[in-house]
Amino acid sequence: MGQDLIAALFGDPFAVMNTIGLIAFALVGSSKAIREEFDLLGITIVGLAMAFAGGATRDLLVTRVPLALQSPVEISLGLFGVGLAIALSVVLSEPDTHPISLVADAIGLAAFTTTGAIVATEAGVSAFGVVAIATINAVGGGALADILLDRAPFILFEDFYASCAVLGGSAYFVAGVVGASGGTAAGICAVVTVLTRLVAVTYDWHLPSIQDLGLLKR
Amino acid sequence: MGQDLIAALFGDPFAVMNTIGLIAFALVGSSKAIREEFDLLGITIVGLAMAFAGGATRDLLVTRVPLALQSPVEISLGLFGVGLAIALSVVLSEPDTHPISLVADAIGLAAFTTTGAIVATEAGVSAFGVVAIATINAVGGGALADILLDRAPFILFEDFYASCAVLGGSAYFVAGVVGASGGTAAGICAVVTVLTRLVAVTYDWHLPSIQDLGLLKR
Amino acid sequence: MGQDLIAALFGDPFAVMNTIGLIAFALVGSSKAIREEFDLLGITIVGLAMAFAGGATRDLLVTRVPLALQSPVEISLGLFGVGLAIALSVVLSEPDTHPISLVADAIGLAAFTTTGAIVATEAGVSAFGVVAIATINAVGGGALADILLDRAPFILFEDFYASCAVLGGSAYFVAGVVGASGGTAAGICAVVTVLTRLVAVTYDWHLPSIQDLGLLKR
Repeated sequence: MGQDLIAALFGDPFAVMNTIGLIAFALVGSSKAIREEFDLLGITIVGLAMAFAGGATRDLLVTRVPLALQSPVEISLGLFGVGLAIALSVVLSEPDTHPISLVADAIGLAAFTTTGAIVATEAGVSAFGVVAIATINAVGGGALADILLDRAPFILFEDFYASCAVLGGSAYFVAGVVGASGGTAAGICAVVTVLTRLVAVTYDWHLPSIQDLGLLKR
Repeated sequence: MGQDLIAALFGDPFAVMNTIGLIAFALVGSSKAIREEFDLLGITIVGLAMAFAGGATRDLLVTRVPLALQSPVEISLGLFGVGLAIALSVVLSEPDTHPISLVADAIGLAAFTTTGAIVATEAGVSAFGVVAIATINAVGGGALADILLDRAPFILFEDFYASCAVLGGSAYFVAGVVGASGGTAAGICAVVTVLTRLVAVTYDWHLPSIQDLGLLKR
Repeated sequence: MGQDLIAALFGDPFAVMNTIGLIAFALVGSSKAIREEFDLLGITIVGLAMAFAGGATRDLLVTRVPLALQSPVEISLGLFGVGLAIALSVVLSEPDTHPISLVADAIGLAAFTTTGAIVATEAGVSAFGVVAIATINAVGGGALADILLDRAPFILFEDFYASCAVLGGSAYFVAGVVGASGGTAAGICAVVTVLTRLVAVTYDWHLPSIQDLGLLKR
């Protein structure tokens, strides 16, 4: 059955998605910091901030001590992503805009949308709460990394980026309502998020502004 | 009696003030995002951030899961404010600097100062805690909206804005100390905040800097 | 014995370090706000934000209501630091870059690294959690002050500043592992942090970037 296949592939969906997300986002955040010529501590802090800030905000919103502060495994995964970014910077030019980084970012976005949806559902919040926590979990780390890098975090909203997390989180909630198991809902959420993100990057998707729609009074 | 009149007018002070504040601040935040030509998701996120961030911070400070994540009513009120902003942008030019926005902002400031003071008092924090949480509740959403819009949040401190929340929160605490009911204290807090804000806008009030006072050694 | 000497000098290490840190960081934050010509409320808010934001974040991370909202003593200490900054601005030119401010900043950094390490250890988080909470406690207030002042917070990572908190927090953890009492570990943590910071300022220490190391592919 599909559910068994997913369980075989994924084991505990939270643990798998969390591992993927931590490594991917630490890699992406550190690559940006290397590009900005941050020192080694700065590279490490931006990488770890991108990896952990979304999940820490999620945990605070459901009032529990952030996992990252309790488990030595989590920090090791983040530091592994930081090390990957340094290794990539030695062999690639402009690693932060290389396709590897764009794909890693899409994968991290999908993984953290999923972990956010799982934790929010377990905490028993409303449908909006599930989508909001999934999106904050997915986008929060990148927003903090941008602030630390002195970039404007609204870029996250311009590029069909947060939209993918909203779609993925909504898919997770709908899958649960129609009776899917947690593992199936997690798989659907991750696939919806990563696919919409990769398609959005490929075709340069943007949501329209009020000005684009010709609605604004001049 | 005065207290009965207020109860008749206001019902549950928290619910009334929360409803007013959510709609008003979502309207103001979304109007700013429309002006900056954000896309539809960006407009929605800035509006909801302005409506919900102050209250969410307040709830985190008293360690409870934010109301906005638990109640579908709250998000509906926020989305109604976002829709109002879009509707206003179609009929008004420069809606974010229109008197409607300035008044909505003053009303939202007063409403959230009051809800912050109510929640802080129920949580049993100190006098400073009541004023601090009331001010953070009132100003936190606007500060996050400014960061998302890539504006400097210190503007909030320059314009006799946060000062109004400090005065309103102090009035709430003093009213409680002298024996006013919760509803009366809420009414006094809201009136003090909105009046000082409207007078400050009208007469362009500013607090002095050390330089203005001629104190700084040159 | 050394432990008795420290106990005699320090009493409750948390209370002593917290008192020192609150006054020192309120002084530093307010001095920066005076330089930027903020008004009196802005000066007070930036000073209190610098004094309280790190500790409040620490308390949220271990899910307890921030101390600053419960105790009237804490706010009095912060306001005393704000008053000191105003007094200094009357007698000194450029108080925010005066050696008094640099030393006060180093002392505040050391004091809050120590209180962060103490609270994190009591909360039973991992080794990484102790270092992370100590660093966030130490650097969080300055980061928020910089955001309020519209400065880029990454300056904190460029100047061998956060590094000192990482070293001090690590020293606290190691001291505990090898059997030191809480008071001894607190003293070691504070001394390591303040000394590395003062030496780093004196000799203009910087951590290398990947570019400095000549590793980046061109």
